[in-house]
This record gives sequence, C-alpha cells and structure tokens, in this order.
Amino acid sequence: MKVGFIGLGLMGNPMAKNILKSGFSLTAFNRTSSKTNELRKLGANIVKTPAELASESEVVITMVTAGNDVEQILFGKDGVVKGAEKGLIIIDMSTIGPTFAKKIADRLKKYHIDFIDAPVTGGVPKAITGELTIFIGGNPNVYKKVKKVLLSVGKTHFYMGKVGNGQATKIVNNQLHPAGIIALSEGMLLADSLGLPRKKVAEALGASPAMSPTMNMILPNYISNKYPLKFSIANLKKDVTLALQEMKKGKINLPVLRKTQSIYSKAIKKGLSGQDFSAIIKIIEK
Amino acid sequence: MKVGFIGLGLMGNPMAKNILKSGFSLTAFNRTSSKTNELRKLGANIVKTPAELASESEVVITMVTAGNDVEQILFGKDGVVKGAEKGLIIIDMSTIGPTFAKKIADRLKKYHIDFIDAPVTGGVPKAITGELTIFIGGNPNVYKKVKKVLLSVGKTHFYMGKVGNGQATKIVNNQLHPAGIIALSEGMLLADSLGLPRKKVAEALGASPAMSPTMNMILPNYISNKYPLKFSIANLKKDVTLALQEMKKGKINLPVLRKTQSIYSKAIKKGLSGQDFSAIIKIIEK
Repeated sequence: MKVGFIGLGLMGNPMAKNILKSGFSLTAFNRTSSKTNELRKLGANIVKTPAELASESEVVITMVTAGNDVEQILFGKDGVVKGAEKGLIIIDMSTIGPTFAKKIADRLKKYHIDFIDAPVTGGVPKAITGELTIFIGGNPNVYKKVKKVLLSVGKTHFYMGKVGNGQATKIVNNQLHPAGIIALSEGMLLADSLGLPRKKVAEALGASPAMSPTMNMILPNYISNKYPLKFSIANLKKDVTLALQEMKKGKINLPVLRKTQSIYSKAIKKGLSGQDFSAIIKIIEK
Repeated sequence: MKVGFIGLGLMGNPMAKNILKSGFSLTAFNRTSSKTNELRKLGANIVKTPAELASESEVVITMVTAGNDVEQILFGKDGVVKGAEKGLIIIDMSTIGPTFAKKIADRLKKYHIDFIDAPVTGGVPKAITGELTIFIGGNPNVYKKVKKVLLSVGKTHFYMGKVGNGQATKIVNNQLHPAGIIALSEGMLLADSLGLPRKKVAEALGASPAMSPTMNMILPNYISNKYPLKFSIANLKKDVTLALQEMKKGKINLPVLRKTQSIYSKAIKKGLSGQDFSAIIKIIEK
C-alpha cells in the first residue's frame, strides 16, 4: 500500500519513520521542507505539494496541529483533493475535535474520498517506539483497509464507531489531564505553605492511588523545579478548548473543565505556550 | 505493649483486629458499645470510658471522624487524660488536619503525654488486610517506640517530620482525589453528549495515562450507573475542606481545590453525604 504522510513535526516524523520501517512505500510532504531530509535519506519520496503527494498515494495521513491546517492541506491551494484519485483514503491523526472531523468527512464525500479520524495518545516517546494508542472513527470497512498502516504506528486501537468518534474519545481522554496536573501543582503549593519538603511529599504521593501515570511522570519536575518539555501548554490548551467547545455545543455545564481551561488559557496569555504542561504551577503560584 | 483503641467504625474495627492478631493486648472503647462485641469475642478488653481505657494502656490510638471528636475523647468528660499516666503515647489516626493535630499535641504536653499524628490512606479494603499507608508526624523517638503497633495496621510508613506533618501530607494527598473523580464524571457526561457509548469510552480510558488507580476503580460505576460505597462524599468533603482551610490559613489561592470543594459541598447540601464519592456525577449533570 502506497502511503502519503503530511506533517513531520515532533510526532509525525517518528510516525512516518515507523511506517517506512514496516515496509510501506512512503511519500512525504512538510511545509518546512528541511524537516524532510531525514526521511529522504531513509528512502522516502519527498514531494513539493499535498496534491502531488495525493497522486502518488492510496492512503494519505495528516498529522498537523489544528482543524484549519487539515482543511488547508486537503482543500487549499495544491491541496490533497487536487491530486487525489477516487477511492483515496485520508486518515487524519491530528487532534481537531469531532465537529471538524465530521465537516471534513462530509466535504470529502463529493470527491469520493473516504475519511477516517484516528487521533493518538502516548506523546513523542510512544510515537518513536511505534506504540501509540489510536482512537478510530469512520466506516469500519475503510478502517479494515488501513489497519496495517495504523498498526505500524500503534498497536492499541480503539474503534469507536462513526466518523468523529475517534476525535470525541480523544477529547474526553485529554480533558482528564489538566485536572490532575493542576491538582498536583496545587498540592505542591499547599505542601510548601504547610512547611512540608517537596521531596518527602513526592515520596509519599508516589505511592498514592490518587496519582495517574502522567502525574507520576511529572512529579520529579516539582522537586527539581525544572519542567522538561514532553507536552506543551499550547497543545494541552488546544485539546481542552476543543472539549470546552463540545461542552458548549452539547449545552452541558462541566465546572472543572471550565476552570482548568481558563487556567491553561491564562498560561498562554502569560507567554507559557511553549513550556511543558506541568509548568502550569507557575501560573497558580502567582 | 498494652494498646488502647478508640473508634471502632468501618476503618477502626479492622485496624483494632489486626493489632490484636499481631499479639498486642488490646483494650477497646466505642461510643456505640454494640460495635465492641466482635472484638470482645476475639479477646479484647472492653471498657466503658476513654479514661478507663487510658489507665489500662501504654499507647492509645484514636480513629474517629473529626478534630472535635478527638478533643472530646481526650479532654472531655471521662476523657483519656483523666486516666492517663505520665509517659502515655497517643496516636491519632483520624484525618483532622495539621492545625488540630498541633493544638492537641500542645495541650497534651501539660499532661506529659506524647502525641503522634498518623492518618492513613487505603480505605476499608487495606484496613482489613493490614496494608494501610500511614503518614506520620511527631517526635521520631516516640515514633520508634510505637512503630511495631503501627506496622500491624500498615507496612508503608512515611515519616514526615514534626507533629502535624502526617496530617499535612494526608490532606495534600486527599485534595488530589476530587479533581480526578470530577474530571472523570465530567468526561462521562461529555461522552454522553457526544453520543459515545460509556462502555466503549471506559475501555478506551482504561488504558489512558491520565487515569489514576482511584479513577480506574470507580470507572465501572459510570457504566452500571451504580455507585457502591467505598468512600463517602461526606468523608471526601471533610478532607477537601481541611485542605481549603489550610489554603486560606497559608494565604495561597488554589483555584481547582476551591472549585472541587464547592462541588462536594453542594453534594452534601443536596443530601448525597452518605453516597460514594464517585456519585458526584449526579450533582454535575443537573
């Protein structure tokens, strides 16, 4: 199967490499062309436009930031649809929310192009090892056709139903993160205030059933006071804002989601976009 | 070592049994005397007042609900101090917050009674198996004297420093719980709104690094729509309110703690006190 891959960022680059390693022929495109050098050396065919990529591919994967980026790549100047033949399958693995995914799938119908939404979790470490978790929405027969390609980037697949349901599951999952991260940050500030040494508190919390694997992963940051970038505040804020938009659309009221979204928004305004999501403590202590 | 145990509730009863099983001679007191029957059969000496209990004991453990209860047991009519000899050690294992613990320790100094605060986590299941986690504050030499008694109720000890530090650690730990539980509840309501079946979402979330052991424990409740009591809303609200009081005392502002405390307070007002802490979803969906 000829695979096209668009978006060679921190996540996309190792994912594309794993597809190549699994024996698929790979064509790649990235807006910043310097990012394609490594893949070219590994044998990928590098092209100059999404349209050209589509003409060389049976399945096109997009791994970019936002819904607008996916639309631009698919429908913009020299976009995928310009070079696509009937029967092309597009898999969007970005996190863009269910509303965008459904809108894009609808637009693609006119071109007789199938669409699967397949956002991932696991971050860069799991992208590198090919162990991402994938939440999948779309026609199950189309999913079957591309399953082997998806297996090359992640073995854990959750098929969630119709188009948009992969995105819906991803945002339900990701809205869990900020509550835990902020609660841990607040716990550290409370410990400071109570005169407890953070190192001792971290030892005690490490054994606690209240701690998620993500919270345990960032726990040492609060002792070293260093927040190495694993997942940016900008990215988490994007995901939580998608959840907030769906909350409003569904006319429900989720008070902790609203509160955590507002705290991550504030962090963006204060210039913390590029910092790790655990660095949110800097906003709270002020 | 002769141990006295006061407070034979859901937690205290199995803890007292484990002390007895470990070979300590045990004297027990409970306000509701019917709760002492089981221990009497197992060989415990049952007495009618805390004062009488103190006169028979070298170490007295209190396991009750609130700081006021501990004060009443120690300093009230027929209280522990009335029957205590110099050198008695009191271990309070209730969750009463650091402010109360320090106040009680100070009052006991006049009576030449040593005080250790040793609140626990792990709930009824770990109380039964003798595997509670214990956060300890107080004089380290006093802790050494009673360590074997504490080992009979829990093997995982965190010695946190001076009196009150055990309580401080406990409330830092417990303020982590409501954020995760509410975020999970909100996630389920968001999933409903997005048309995702809860059962499928639960499968997907089960593998997520955003999920703590506690969140995984309550996850099935949101599918069955049944919330079997493991830890009550009243108890969690009590712990989170202690954290909120220390936050105010420390003049810091922890927005997610404030929000989650207000949600659990609302649940109490709506009559959900006795329900499991996962049943908080009932408040959010209204």
